Amino acid sequence: MKETTWLEKAAPGIADLHPYIPGKPIEELERELGLVETIKLASNENPLGPSPLAWSQAQMVVGDVNLYPDDSGFRLRNCLAEFHAISPDAFILGAGSSDVLNMVARAFLSPGVNAVFSAHSFAMYAIYTQACGATAKVADPLPADHAEMPYGHDLDAMLAQVDENTRVIFIANPNNPTGTWLQRDELKRFLDRIPADVVVVLDEAYTQYVEDERFPDGIEWIADYPNLIVTRTFSKIYGLAGLRVGYGIASPDLLGVIGRLRAPFNVSLPALAAAEKALEDVEFLKQSILTNSEGMQQLEAGFDALGLKTIPSVGNFLCVEFERPGGEVYDALLNKGVIVRPVANYQLPNHLRITIGSRNENEVLLEALREVL
Amino acid sequence: MKETTWLEKAAPGIADLHPYIPGKPIEELERELGLVETIKLASNENPLGPSPLAWSQAQMVVGDVNLYPDDSGFRLRNCLAEFHAISPDAFILGAGSSDVLNMVARAFLSPGVNAVFSAHSFAMYAIYTQACGATAKVADPLPADHAEMPYGHDLDAMLAQVDENTRVIFIANPNNPTGTWLQRDELKRFLDRIPADVVVVLDEAYTQYVEDERFPDGIEWIADYPNLIVTRTFSKIYGLAGLRVGYGIASPDLLGVIGRLRAPFNVSLPALAAAEKALEDVEFLKQSILTNSEGMQQLEAGFDALGLKTIPSVGNFLCVEFERPGGEVYDALLNKGVIVRPVANYQLPNHLRITIGSRNENEVLLEALREVL
Repeated sequence: MKETTWLEKAAPGIADLHPYIPGKPIEELERELGLVETIKLASNENPLGPSPLAWSQAQMVVGDVNLYPDDSGFRLRNCLAEFHAISPDAFILGAGSSDVLNMVARAFLSPGVNAVFSAHSFAMYAIYTQACGATAKVADPLPADHAEMPYGHDLDAMLAQVDENTRVIFIANPNNPTGTWLQRDELKRFLDRIPADVVVVLDEAYTQYVEDERFPDGIEWIADYPNLIVTRTFSKIYGLAGLRVGYGIASPDLLGVIGRLRAPFNVSLPALAAAEKALEDVEFLKQSILTNSEGMQQLEAGFDALGLKTIPSVGNFLCVEFERPGGEVYDALLNKGVIVRPVANYQLPNHLRITIGSRNENEVLLEALREVL
Repeated sequence: MKETTWLEKAAPGIADLHPYIPGKPIEELERELGLVETIKLASNENPLGPSPLAWSQAQMVVGDVNLYPDDSGFRLRNCLAEFHAISPDAFILGAGSSDVLNMVARAFLSPGVNAVFSAHSFAMYAIYTQACGATAKVADPLPADHAEMPYGHDLDAMLAQVDENTRVIFIANPNNPTGTWLQRDELKRFLDRIPADVVVVLDEAYTQYVEDERFPDGIEWIADYPNLIVTRTFSKIYGLAGLRVGYGIASPDLLGVIGRLRAPFNVSLPALAAAEKALEDVEFLKQSILTNSEGMQQLEAGFDALGLKTIPSVGNFLCVEFERPGGEVYDALLNKGVIVRPVANYQLPNHLRITIGSRNENEVLLEALREVL
């Protein structure tokens, strides 16, 4: 039987399901183009490496991997409870926070109901919704010429999409791939207007990079909004993307449903151990934030000098506009050994998303761009 | 809102979904009972530890975990292709083989269709079916007093459960938790009688332990049965349970559908690296098989001396009958610092599943049993 014939037998939604397109791995580029000395600024990875406390702990426990990980994640949930000053029962662990997003989708989405999210938001919201055979209601973003938050989430437009069949709302703050963000007051007003039986997912994968005082910590709202789940990841600022570990925080009643979809042993043994230690690595976090803010200035100045506009970002990445198909610039950069991220699948065909790297990586990128443009 | 109220909003099947009950971790037992020097024979883990080639490779790469894993699993799929002498396109990687089972379920199961499997087979078949809101059609097993294969899969009974709404059939060979198995000829005859548009999952998690010549290698059938997917894991004989890595082998057309449900980066960076090396660790496999067959003899003799009947097993575990609730014996063993596995949830209320451990672990278990009984 052909793939198309199998699709006729597939579950609802699968025929129109198209998997996530990840950033190109360095190894793949070097294999395909025979290059060496390539750099990757495509997946918002931490240019400083993994948290040293974390990866040395992973290294220590890896000799025990004949054993299954602790499925309950007892120790990590207790470390998180202490870190956030919330009960361990309020945490659910995932293989990256995207695993938690998937659990939420599977718990509440199915044919006949819908999920609401904004245009230009994280690609997995649409993919997980589609995989459940549910409908995606995509709100228009703020306009490209908006004075404060071009391409940002338009909360009024999102609210207008919510109807009696809405089960889940996905919000990324800050948002990927745009780097735009929502202020505490406007987001709280939004939460107040959402029906109590609609689950709001507040995806805070990049939250640690944001230094603006008006930026909210969604975890403070968990007690007041039993329909809120905040997700966090160890993949970004903690530098543990390769280990796959993240978490969600919500009321235990809500987690009682979402947790039914958690696969057994979903977080590996070294990932659990590393994440515990990452929480203690205050110094690494500080250094990462500093590197990012210096790199942000370096890149913004460089793009400015090249006459390129960027979407104002508070993450560890910048969306750059090229006034021509981003794919062309992407290909040209690949040939120079620099991997960045096309975002045409985010309805940003003329942009590329560029991760803020080390000082040297940023310079290499800017130099390559100068040659390409 | 209470958990029960959230369940009213949940997707089909979720209200009746009850998560997997894993073996009790050693750490948990020691924490709860204040014991030290406990042993765990509850999760069919390799008592020799992880493959040394594999875990030292994982240790080497763990400093790179700021990078995402290669989502395509290019290198591991190529190693597997060489190992099994099949095209790399025929492989799909999972976070354990259960991840692949989950993808199959999600690709083909939904409300209104069904999956067929045998009583006493791996618990995740029922759980994944329920999570998709599909119906489980459970075939009666061979009787407890069957001459050759008590509690085994009854292929005729399974075939009789297949109807026009059947999308997936799950078969474990050998089966967990019973350790029973199916011969090449009978299984091939079964495959010949299954409609070509029903997916057959042949779960070979324990295949490397089986030494009987009549035991089939399902991978040899992939070319002839486009509806067949064979799953394998690195969690058992390779000793990599804590890293979460396994795979499926099937026709690329079938994988084109199943692969749509694979989560991005589902196999971690150290797991990919370790699995590559595990395939080369021929010596470790040999040693593991030897340890298991010696341990099997040791335990069978010990149970026999205690007057306990076992289900004949070709895996790295034995189901032992106690003629009273297994839970009572389980609790008594826990108090002696020995963790085994209750199988009441497998409709085997008077049995316990006991993993074959090291010579010393087996002796500790037998001694504890002598005291308990």
